[in-house]
Amino acid sequence: MINITFPDGNVRQYETGTTPLSIAKSISEGLAKRILVASINGQIWDMSRPVYEDSNIKLLSWDDTDGKSTFWHSSAHLMAEAVEAMFPGVKFWVGPPIDKGFYYDMDLGDAQITEDDLVKLEKKMTELAKQNNLYTRQEVSKADAVAYFTEKGDEYKLDLLENLEDGEITFYTQGNFTDLCRGPHIPHTGLIKSIKLTNISGAYWKGDEKNKVLTRVYGVTFPNQQEMDEYLHMLEEAKKRDHRKLGKELGIFTFDDDVGPGLPLWMPNGTIIIEELEKLAKETEEAAGYKRVVTPHIAKESMYLTSGHLPYYQDSMYPPMEMDGTKYYLKAMNCPHHHKIFDAEPRSYRDLPLRLAEYGTCYRYEQSGELFGLMRVRCLHMNDAHIYCTKEQFFEEFRAVNDMYLKYFKIFGIEKYVMRLSLHDPAKLGQKYINEPELWLETEEMVRQVLKDTGTPFVEVADEGAFYGPKIDVQIWSAIGREFTLATNQVDFAQGRRFNLSYTTSDNSHDTPLIIHRAPLGTHERFIGFLLEHYAGRFPVWLSPVQVKVLPISDKVADFSKNVFQSLKSAGIRVEIDNRVESIGKKIREAELMRVPYMLIVGEKEAAEGKVSVRKQAEGDLGQQTIAEFVANMREWSNRQ
Amino acid sequence: MINITFPDGNVRQYETGTTPLSIAKSISEGLAKRILVASINGQIWDMSRPVYEDSNIKLLSWDDTDGKSTFWHSSAHLMAEAVEAMFPGVKFWVGPPIDKGFYYDMDLGDAQITEDDLVKLEKKMTELAKQNNLYTRQEVSKADAVAYFTEKGDEYKLDLLENLEDGEITFYTQGNFTDLCRGPHIPHTGLIKSIKLTNISGAYWKGDEKNKVLTRVYGVTFPNQQEMDEYLHMLEEAKKRDHRKLGKELGIFTFDDDVGPGLPLWMPNGTIIIEELEKLAKETEEAAGYKRVVTPHIAKESMYLTSGHLPYYQDSMYPPMEMDGTKYYLKAMNCPHHHKIFDAEPRSYRDLPLRLAEYGTCYRYEQSGELFGLMRVRCLHMNDAHIYCTKEQFFEEFRAVNDMYLKYFKIFGIEKYVMRLSLHDPAKLGQKYINEPELWLETEEMVRQVLKDTGTPFVEVADEGAFYGPKIDVQIWSAIGREFTLATNQVDFAQGRRFNLSYTTSDNSHDTPLIIHRAPLGTHERFIGFLLEHYAGRFPVWLSPVQVKVLPISDKVADFSKNVFQSLKSAGIRVEIDNRVESIGKKIREAELMRVPYMLIVGEKEAAEGKVSVRKQAEGDLGQQTIAEFVANMREWSNRQ
Repeated sequence: MINITFPDGNVRQYETGTTPLSIAKSISEGLAKRILVASINGQIWDMSRPVYEDSNIKLLSWDDTDGKSTFWHSSAHLMAEAVEAMFPGVKFWVGPPIDKGFYYDMDLGDAQITEDDLVKLEKKMTELAKQNNLYTRQEVSKADAVAYFTEKGDEYKLDLLENLEDGEITFYTQGNFTDLCRGPHIPHTGLIKSIKLTNISGAYWKGDEKNKVLTRVYGVTFPNQQEMDEYLHMLEEAKKRDHRKLGKELGIFTFDDDVGPGLPLWMPNGTIIIEELEKLAKETEEAAGYKRVVTPHIAKESMYLTSGHLPYYQDSMYPPMEMDGTKYYLKAMNCPHHHKIFDAEPRSYRDLPLRLAEYGTCYRYEQSGELFGLMRVRCLHMNDAHIYCTKEQFFEEFRAVNDMYLKYFKIFGIEKYVMRLSLHDPAKLGQKYINEPELWLETEEMVRQVLKDTGTPFVEVADEGAFYGPKIDVQIWSAIGREFTLATNQVDFAQGRRFNLSYTTSDNSHDTPLIIHRAPLGTHERFIGFLLEHYAGRFPVWLSPVQVKVLPISDKVADFSKNVFQSLKSAGIRVEIDNRVESIGKKIREAELMRVPYMLIVGEKEAAEGKVSVRKQAEGDLGQQTIAEFVANMREWSNRQ
Repeated sequence: MINITFPDGNVRQYETGTTPLSIAKSISEGLAKRILVASINGQIWDMSRPVYEDSNIKLLSWDDTDGKSTFWHSSAHLMAEAVEAMFPGVKFWVGPPIDKGFYYDMDLGDAQITEDDLVKLEKKMTELAKQNNLYTRQEVSKADAVAYFTEKGDEYKLDLLENLEDGEITFYTQGNFTDLCRGPHIPHTGLIKSIKLTNISGAYWKGDEKNKVLTRVYGVTFPNQQEMDEYLHMLEEAKKRDHRKLGKELGIFTFDDDVGPGLPLWMPNGTIIIEELEKLAKETEEAAGYKRVVTPHIAKESMYLTSGHLPYYQDSMYPPMEMDGTKYYLKAMNCPHHHKIFDAEPRSYRDLPLRLAEYGTCYRYEQSGELFGLMRVRCLHMNDAHIYCTKEQFFEEFRAVNDMYLKYFKIFGIEKYVMRLSLHDPAKLGQKYINEPELWLETEEMVRQVLKDTGTPFVEVADEGAFYGPKIDVQIWSAIGREFTLATNQVDFAQGRRFNLSYTTSDNSHDTPLIIHRAPLGTHERFIGFLLEHYAGRFPVWLSPVQVKVLPISDKVADFSKNVFQSLKSAGIRVEIDNRVESIGKKIREAELMRVPYMLIVGEKEAAEGKVSVRKQAEGDLGQQTIAEFVANMREWSNRQ
């Protein structure tokens, strides 16, 4: 008998050689049907694979990240089976799960897969899925494995085998398809209820452009049709809300070949959004006791040698500018500059916590293939700050940072978010992690406690902390359910010492401050990209580049319209007037397209009564109001919440 | 007889061979005594030098720039005479007038001039000046000149003679001193009434560090003692108001070796000033119809080849960053980026004037020897904007720019200013100046007319325009009378075409916009440096980093003090509280040193009455006020004017 420990601490005894499936069934048949795969002592494990030792178990369903990715990995095998049925002789490279779905890279010889074939393949996959074929695991010797794929004539799998040894080679088979694979897989194909093959593209073998181009087929599957429908709807919405498309239509940003890839130029409308976001951040940070600083965009090589960014981070930085024997680098992060400001004056415990904030612009040399609209850029306007504090102050400071996130989530209507708390691995102290065992445990516990106290949803990830302390990645979901990484918080035990930062303690000795790196609004680039999708370009009034458009029906009301315009402008409202000789219908259509929140239609009747007809974007007529009424309403409508 | 035309257009006849001195005397003996030198057909001319042709004349006194510099040049000769008397055998290189005074470079052989010698030299100069020796001009052949300096053994003057030809060599003699000099000079030494030798330094011969170090003696002279006294007082004040000293004391900015020379880090107090200035600029520009943009700090080489900054301006730019076969440059100016934003959308005459504004940060690689505090830096936050307009709109646009300058001068209490209008030379069209003869004349005349209409003081300078249009340099004087170059406006006919910028005209053809480059507040760096001196660190309330400091007399009033602090903070006042256990005297002294405009002293009596004792920085007690009264007063005191 072996002891199986459940996540809640419960321990139960099972026969040696039992399987996760038996264990699940021992709890309930219903549960067993929903479970896709198990975690045995932290390793993902097939449901039918025997367990011979005392173990911790977690039963993973579709709702778990590992459940989903196993489901998609098994779907890739199912797709391969269908492809092999339709294209005999096809050779396979690798077929991993991805963020949303899976792909498989394959060599079709002279054949080609067309869009039409995708439909046929989907059909074939559905047919195979319905056979409820089991995914079976088989341990194979290297000699047998090589013999199998030599016989099959698949040089790609033979290439993979070169790096594997006896004892670590397994085959998985479902139906008529056998693959070299380390697994694990879901129990059987019948769990895959809804299938969509989404895209065909080319991919260099091993990502090397000197190699052959393989065919990559992307797909996504779900355990029920409803989730597929929701997903496809989201894709369609995401396409309509594509920030690159909206960004151009609404005059938010542009790129230019002579400026360079990944370097957005912010147009007047985008700049208004930037300035409103900065205003929000500055007000919020001012109230939270932050002090602002401004630092240059470059620094000498010596600074980044001190910080340790050189040489480790060099590939992500622009190359140096060398003159008069000195190398200057564009800054890829603001921290070293802020540390220098901390260090510019003698500091005492009375000065702490010192919170230095800057909307600093950093430059990172992302690979050109990775650049994507505002989401992956080389120029980053970062809502950055560094908090220098004592160990005693850390809990309160971290809680305040967390509160700031929650405040922002509320303002922007971000309803789904999760903090990924990355921890250290005690076994790697002094190597992957700075050797401060107590500080690690203490700060991790304080961070955890803050997240619990505030009811902030979070997950813990072992062995993914930064070198110098625990890290919190902030994941948010847009209104249509797409996930974005917004920002990262870091706790830092190391930089303070590298820069010799110190403060005088109350007993007149010296200590090094702890540092919190935080950037709740991330970068303008990514956040505005997110907001474009999140709001579908229909920014709330306070963020709208143009808040009101005055639309005169004819020249006869030119004077009154001008008065309306001036009154609103004097009231601090961002207003434009459309006094072209165009039909009112056209004027409204164009203002609607530009997502102007309020349109004021002025005809002779309105002018005579000293009123305007108020129209709300995407909603329609709100009736007539006097200018004073409208200005008063705007004050309310322009509130951030 | 010859015709002499006066600046007012009056023409009078004089004997051929008359001198400016005779002409001045013919007007009035009093005038003749004040005149130092004349301008004859634009050439500066000794008062005793004959005039043989019809000429335009200007009589120049100490109040004219050319009058002053001639006075100081003659003073350099007087100093040389005194040096030669005290150090026989001294050899002279050059002795030009400078911005304020003059210097002479000399080779003293084994001798050295000490600070004590300066006093003796001043005495000797005064003695020589009182002899009223005439400065006499003599045309000399090259052979005679070489013979003279060979005889004297002065290899430096012989070196100068190498580049001169017969017909362009003149000697000037006063008293016992004769110098090779192209002149002109003032009539006689007796005009030099007050003399101060200010400094001794070393200077490489011809500025080449491989050459011998010559001794450079600096001095300044005045035509009366009062101006000397004022000047010395200003120097003393300038020392007290040194922006580098104040900048450190008040926590405005700092430099760091690892960041690099000429790259200021703005501390929290400096950042508040920056943000207040930006707020002022943004509000002013918003009201004036500007639109804001944000652009990256780098661009590809191709952009600067298009603009023409490469290769001509290359020496002033940081070296390129080269990666993946592309060179990127840090921007040294914002214009090309703004042109790209103009070009990002189709533009019509309806969009003009388009005024694109940005507090853009530029980088210029100034020589390290030229760096000086905030005055000469490598990182420049520029109050920049580019106005794209039609020729018809130019006058109004330029007038609006000029009005903005005048508005700022008023806000900052800048009472003395002058615009230097640099014009083209028609003879150099197509070479030094873009070949648009009519546009040159038209825009120059429009600029001139705006300056006249608005009563803006200005001077015209021939043949100093930019390549692409007339240029206006804005000179301002600080409260202690020191001159600063604040900014430059430029009219631009060329860049629009180089960047292929165009707009659709009302008759549906295409035209290139005119561009006005303007930056009324210059750069943060230079302007804040200027303001530190101008205000002696005592910024007006709206610009003060800390506006109010609450100073509790003892712990007993801690709660009430905290309430005062919170009330002011809620009212948007930048307030700090000094709750250290220190004497009230010390707290006041430190707040005074930090130039905090208002100190609120809180004792038990005040707390009991719900009042504060208000103390104004550098002025003292203003009596007791309730918090509400003080907040109301602050609203008034914080106004910009």
